Amino acid sequence: MAATAGKRFVLAEAFDGDVKETNFRLEATLIPAPNEGEVLLEALYLTVDPYMRVWGVQEGEPMVGEQVAKVIASRDNNIAVGSLVQAQSGWTTHSVAKGSDVTPVPTFSSPDWPKSLALGVLGMPGKTAYFGLLDSCRPKAGETVVVSGAAGAVGGVVGQIAKIKGCRVIGFAGSDKKVQYLKDLGYDVAINYKTMGDLDMTLKKAVPEGIDCYYDNVGGEFSSTVLYNMNVRGRVCVCGSISAYNEKERPKASIVQPAINRQRLTMQGMMVYDYTDRFPEALKDMMQWIQEGKLKYREHVTNGFENTPKAFMELFSGDNFGKAIIKI
Amino acid sequence: MAATAGKRFVLAEAFDGDVKETNFRLEATLIPAPNEGEVLLEALYLTVDPYMRVWGVQEGEPMVGEQVAKVIASRDNNIAVGSLVQAQSGWTTHSVAKGSDVTPVPTFSSPDWPKSLALGVLGMPGKTAYFGLLDSCRPKAGETVVVSGAAGAVGGVVGQIAKIKGCRVIGFAGSDKKVQYLKDLGYDVAINYKTMGDLDMTLKKAVPEGIDCYYDNVGGEFSSTVLYNMNVRGRVCVCGSISAYNEKERPKASIVQPAINRQRLTMQGMMVYDYTDRFPEALKDMMQWIQEGKLKYREHVTNGFENTPKAFMELFSGDNFGKAIIKI
Repeated sequence: MAATAGKRFVLAEAFDGDVKETNFRLEATLIPAPNEGEVLLEALYLTVDPYMRVWGVQEGEPMVGEQVAKVIASRDNNIAVGSLVQAQSGWTTHSVAKGSDVTPVPTFSSPDWPKSLALGVLGMPGKTAYFGLLDSCRPKAGETVVVSGAAGAVGGVVGQIAKIKGCRVIGFAGSDKKVQYLKDLGYDVAINYKTMGDLDMTLKKAVPEGIDCYYDNVGGEFSSTVLYNMNVRGRVCVCGSISAYNEKERPKASIVQPAINRQRLTMQGMMVYDYTDRFPEALKDMMQWIQEGKLKYREHVTNGFENTPKAFMELFSGDNFGKAIIKI
Repeated sequence: MAATAGKRFVLAEAFDGDVKETNFRLEATLIPAPNEGEVLLEALYLTVDPYMRVWGVQEGEPMVGEQVAKVIASRDNNIAVGSLVQAQSGWTTHSVAKGSDVTPVPTFSSPDWPKSLALGVLGMPGKTAYFGLLDSCRPKAGETVVVSGAAGAVGGVVGQIAKIKGCRVIGFAGSDKKVQYLKDLGYDVAINYKTMGDLDMTLKKAVPEGIDCYYDNVGGEFSSTVLYNMNVRGRVCVCGSISAYNEKERPKASIVQPAINRQRLTMQGMMVYDYTDRFPEALKDMMQWIQEGKLKYREHVTNGFENTPKAFMELFSGDNFGKAIIKI
C-alpha cells in the first residue's frame, strides 16, 4: 500500500498573548501505510477546545486534539475498515494510530444523532460537565448553581444537568445572543457579563439566597467575586480559567483564601481523563437525557480543514457558542 | 451577693489597617451576682488569636475570645465553686455565664501541665491543627507537607502531627529565632521567608519532589506560589489568611485556578467549631502524643490583663511565637 497524502497544522510560533493565524502552519504530510496493529485514519470531524492553548505543544510540533475518523486501512484484527473511531490524532486530515489507542465511536441511542456528538455533549466536554458538576460540585436538589463560561461546550451541559438535578441555575456569558441561548437551554437566570455592570451587585440581586455550587470555567477576578457570595460549605469545580489563557503574565485577582476559610468552601480542580473508568456511566445518563429531551446540544460547525485555526481563535474572541466542530 | 468589680476591653475603634493600642478601651465593669443556672467566673488565662481581628466585633462591643476561668460563685448544681472551666467570656477579668455555656477544663494526663494548654495545644489552636491537617490535607506517610505561619499556635502543632504521620515537613516563619524553634519542633526544613529571596526558587530547591499537602495560615501571593509547586491531587487546608487581616482593601495575588485545575488540587476551608463532635478524639490523641514526647508545646506568656492588646498586636508584628497566653 502506498503512502497517503494528508494535511496537518503544526504550531509555527509559541502562543504569546492572543492566538493569531501566524501561530499555525499548514503542512502537507505523507502518511505511511499502517504497520501490524495499526490503523490508517481519515478525519471526519475535528474539535477545537480552549485547553489546547495551554497544553504545552512546542514550536514545530503538530497541534493536539481528538477527532472522529473513518478507518480507511486496518492491520488490527479488531477494527474493521469503514468503522468510525475517536483518536487523539490532532489537527490532521490523515493519520496512523495504534489500534489500541483508538476507541469506537459509541453507538448512539438514535442513528440520527451526528457522530460529532462524540466530540461534544457525548464526548470530552460533556463528560467534563458531568463529572465536574456531579463529583466536584455535588449539587443537591433545591441548591443554587452558578456557571461561568456558561455558553461554552462544557457550560451549556453543566447548566442542563444542574436543572435535571433540581437546582436553580444562573449562567454568565458574553453576549445577548449567548444569554438567549442559555435561556433556551433552561437556565433560570442568564446574564451578559459584559453589560451587567458590577458583578457583586448583580449576584446579590440575582442570587439573594447565596451560591451553593460554582462551576468555574473562567477563573480570575470574576471567580473571586463569586466565591465571596457563596454559602457555608459551598463547592467549587475549577474546570478552566479561560480568562488567563491568553495572558502573557499570570494575572492577579482578589485573594480567595478569606472566602474559602470563612465559608468553609471546597475548591476542586477537575480533568476528565481522571474519570475514564466511569465514562460508560456518563454516556448512559446523557444519552437518556437527550432522548427525554432534557439535555439539548448545539454545535458551532466550521466547514473545511483549513479553517481550524479560525475556529480555534473564535473560542477566545467570544464569537463561538455551543460546541466548536470542524467538518472536514 | 454583691456585684463583683472587674475589667474588660471593648473595641473603641473599628480595625482599619494595622492593629494599634487605640483600637481598644479598658473599662471597669460591675458583674452582677449569677442568676439561677449561671456561674460567676474569674479569668486565670486569656488567649489572643488572629481570628479576633476579623470576627466582626463592632465598635463599643467587648472583645471576644476564650478563657480559662475559676468558678467563684455558682448557681448551677453541676458546677462546683473552685472548679476550672473554659468560657467564651472575651477579654474580661470577671464575667457571668450560663452553666450550660461553659465546659470543664479537661483532666490532663499529667497534673503538671499548665491549665492554659486548654487554650493552646489542647484547645482551639491545637484542634484546628489536628482537624485541618488530618481532615483537609489527609497526609499519607512519605508525602511532603508545607506549612506557612509555621511558628504560630496552629502551625507549630501542624508540623509535629505531620511528622507523627510519617511526612516530610517544611515550615516557613518570619525570623531566624522562629526558624530555630521549628527545627526544635522537628520540622525537616525551616525557612525564614523574610530573608530567603524568591519563594518559587526556594521551593524548587527545598522540595524538589513537589508538595502533596499545604497547610495555609497566610494566604495571598505566598500561597499562590506554593500552589504552583504542588503535585497532582495535592490537598490544601485554608486555615487562615493572616497576610490579609490588616489590609484595608482585599489584596490581589496571582490567580490560583490554573494551578488547581492543572494539578487537580483540592482546597478546603476549615473552622474548628465544625468539629465539636470529634473534640474528644483530638484531645485523646494529642495528650498521648505529649506524653510520648512527640508533641511539644511552647507558650508565649504575657503577664497582666492590661497587656492583652499588646499581646494581640504581637500576633501581627511577627514578634510572637508559640501560643500567645495572657496570665491574669
